[in-house]
Amino acid sequence: MKSSQLFTRTRKQAPADETSKNAQLLIRAGFVHKEMAGVYAYLPLGLRVIENIKTIVREEMNTINSNELIMTGLQRKEVWDKTGRWNDDVVDVWFKSKLKDGTEVGFGWSHEEPIVEMIKQHINSYKDLPVSLYQFQTKLRNELRAKSGIMRGREFVMKDMYSFHNSAEELEDYYNLAIEAYKRVFNRLGIGKDTYVTFASGGAFTKFSHEFQTICEAGEDVIYLHRGKNIAINEEVIDDAVKELGIKREDLEKVNTAETGNIFNFGSQKADEIGLKVSGPDDKEQSVYLGSYGIGITRVMGVIAEKMSDDKGLVWPENVAPFKVYLASLGDNEQVTKAADELYALLQKNNIETLYDDRSVRPGEKFADADLMGIPHRIVISEKTIQAGTLEYKSRTGTDTKMITKQELLEILG
Amino acid sequence: MKSSQLFTRTRKQAPADETSKNAQLLIRAGFVHKEMAGVYAYLPLGLRVIENIKTIVREEMNTINSNELIMTGLQRKEVWDKTGRWNDDVVDVWFKSKLKDGTEVGFGWSHEEPIVEMIKQHINSYKDLPVSLYQFQTKLRNELRAKSGIMRGREFVMKDMYSFHNSAEELEDYYNLAIEAYKRVFNRLGIGKDTYVTFASGGAFTKFSHEFQTICEAGEDVIYLHRGKNIAINEEVIDDAVKELGIKREDLEKVNTAETGNIFNFGSQKADEIGLKVSGPDDKEQSVYLGSYGIGITRVMGVIAEKMSDDKGLVWPENVAPFKVYLASLGDNEQVTKAADELYALLQKNNIETLYDDRSVRPGEKFADADLMGIPHRIVISEKTIQAGTLEYKSRTGTDTKMITKQELLEILG
Repeated sequence: MKSSQLFTRTRKQAPADETSKNAQLLIRAGFVHKEMAGVYAYLPLGLRVIENIKTIVREEMNTINSNELIMTGLQRKEVWDKTGRWNDDVVDVWFKSKLKDGTEVGFGWSHEEPIVEMIKQHINSYKDLPVSLYQFQTKLRNELRAKSGIMRGREFVMKDMYSFHNSAEELEDYYNLAIEAYKRVFNRLGIGKDTYVTFASGGAFTKFSHEFQTICEAGEDVIYLHRGKNIAINEEVIDDAVKELGIKREDLEKVNTAETGNIFNFGSQKADEIGLKVSGPDDKEQSVYLGSYGIGITRVMGVIAEKMSDDKGLVWPENVAPFKVYLASLGDNEQVTKAADELYALLQKNNIETLYDDRSVRPGEKFADADLMGIPHRIVISEKTIQAGTLEYKSRTGTDTKMITKQELLEILG
Repeated sequence: MKSSQLFTRTRKQAPADETSKNAQLLIRAGFVHKEMAGVYAYLPLGLRVIENIKTIVREEMNTINSNELIMTGLQRKEVWDKTGRWNDDVVDVWFKSKLKDGTEVGFGWSHEEPIVEMIKQHINSYKDLPVSLYQFQTKLRNELRAKSGIMRGREFVMKDMYSFHNSAEELEDYYNLAIEAYKRVFNRLGIGKDTYVTFASGGAFTKFSHEFQTICEAGEDVIYLHRGKNIAINEEVIDDAVKELGIKREDLEKVNTAETGNIFNFGSQKADEIGLKVSGPDDKEQSVYLGSYGIGITRVMGVIAEKMSDDKGLVWPENVAPFKVYLASLGDNEQVTKAADELYALLQKNNIETLYDDRSVRPGEKFADADLMGIPHRIVISEKTIQAGTLEYKSRTGTDTKMITKQELLEILG
């Protein structure tokens, strides 16, 4: 895409009322717009990042035979009353309103109850299981405070997946498949090595649940790490876990983290409460076992913005970046424009997402924007490079430029 | 995708409380789930249809240099107060709620005001214009009644686009480009010949606005058609339009329609009210001209379901169908399974979206499902076809089957 056709604007200063680093950077770089505290619109650059993250998550969920659907934002009281979670004393993040006839409605902060209710109409027999379903949904949560930018929004995008099984063992197997799928997701997102499968508080059926915690200074969680044994424990269960896992507390390192994913084993409790049963091989009613698996899509974006940035701006991993290449032509020289146009066409032909900065602004402004936006690869075409018969290349994280050929560029971009 | 991996279930009867034909069909065929009146979840088959519609709309909006973003569902009172549209007497479809600190918030039923407010932070000069932006947004509208299935939801998906210009003339030109883009959209969606650019009531700056009205028995609108002159008029402006356009009322045909799209010229009124101005070439402040352009994504899906169906079920146009091919293998014969597996692999290699019905159910059940789901092309592989060295082909709209070769199939699927 050409810069002249992209709706974006970088700015020197973040708004004074924005205190979180991720939102400051994302606003300055033109990725998001703050509507109110914890509520952000995603501008074209930001939407591209979200879609890249979703694509990776979608591919990995499909790999474990999950089916994508989309539930509703509007929620019925009756469904949530079955588990007691309509009550504002039990769930304190509801937004609620009323239909014209006075019927109360809620706005989806989670979809566990409604998806269990929905599936009652779609399965009858043990033969219909297992089933796994997921969605990318905009969740609304009436948070008391929202000071972490897009890392904790009142409105945010989540991938939530639900799996339904005939037995605790079958659920356990799928749960483990999901852990592996999540690891692949975080690796592909570029934060794999800083993301830990973490023991967290469990439910009625399991001693622990599992969170995916990503090391992040601005994160709101604290975990204890045993780097040698690759064990991570949420501080909320540290006493139990140390005992259970037979490790020494003094070997653990305390770090700030953000919960980027979580998986939860409900056993048969949730389905029992909502009245979801299937007929078994003996024609008798039997329980259904539910697992629930979340990844915070916009939170992941915020965590990456927090972690992978420097004093010049954002530094997106390749798989997440809104564009892979920033192509800048310098000056109004006709030959330069022609060469830049040709390279842009070549990159497009090779399906390499390129932001072609065709604006008539000074080089320093183009370079500053490329850095602030965090595009991984920068190419410059100028009179100097044309005379040399090469291109000027710099990676976002590198310090030096180098002169390379088109062929070398295509190899770098792999 | 194999049927055994697809979460879906067809059913003989629609739920008793569902009165609209489109929702009855879509529920029976396993495309949607009714959460409450006017609020539907989209199951995997339904989501595929929505995504196909969105892809067509997205491509055409990109063609007229519009940029995709996503605004927020949560809305601020202050922004809407500027135009008086926070008032429930002015806009009677608001859902509203409150933050923990008592601040009122609304849920987006439209995004005209917030996008104008947002863009104030992104443009300063006439040189920054024109700008065109669009989103696919889930809108919430507190409708008194919701009896038309997914054709009028309390929760629905809309593509809304907004263009910003330096002059009424520049806006007019873009408005006309948008009309042409919309025509291409409706043609590609398969409802072009039944969709009319219709004169409707205008605003402060234009005598008429334009609606895209699609002929549909269950539609909630009435228009008057002059088929010879290809003129369509919403009944709300019939007297004015007949006079203005110099046509005879008795030449007009009265038809029921659904408003699938609309475009509106706000002149500079909306931007003036919200305080959006730019500096002109003479450095003086000048007005900004706004156009607004909607397409009801889920409504279009409902209209297609209403119009293009028969007593066997849905009949999707090729570009919209969740799968292009329904491949059924009959019987448990090993050769049959092998041949069906091979054809499935061939279709996948050719990027032809195929639903491969690998279930062990009787042929009649497979054929009934293929028809109910409305998949355009049906292929059967059985012992009989293997002996004949051919495939059995039937189009969804055809009455007869015919025996064809693989090569002929690939030609049909073109």
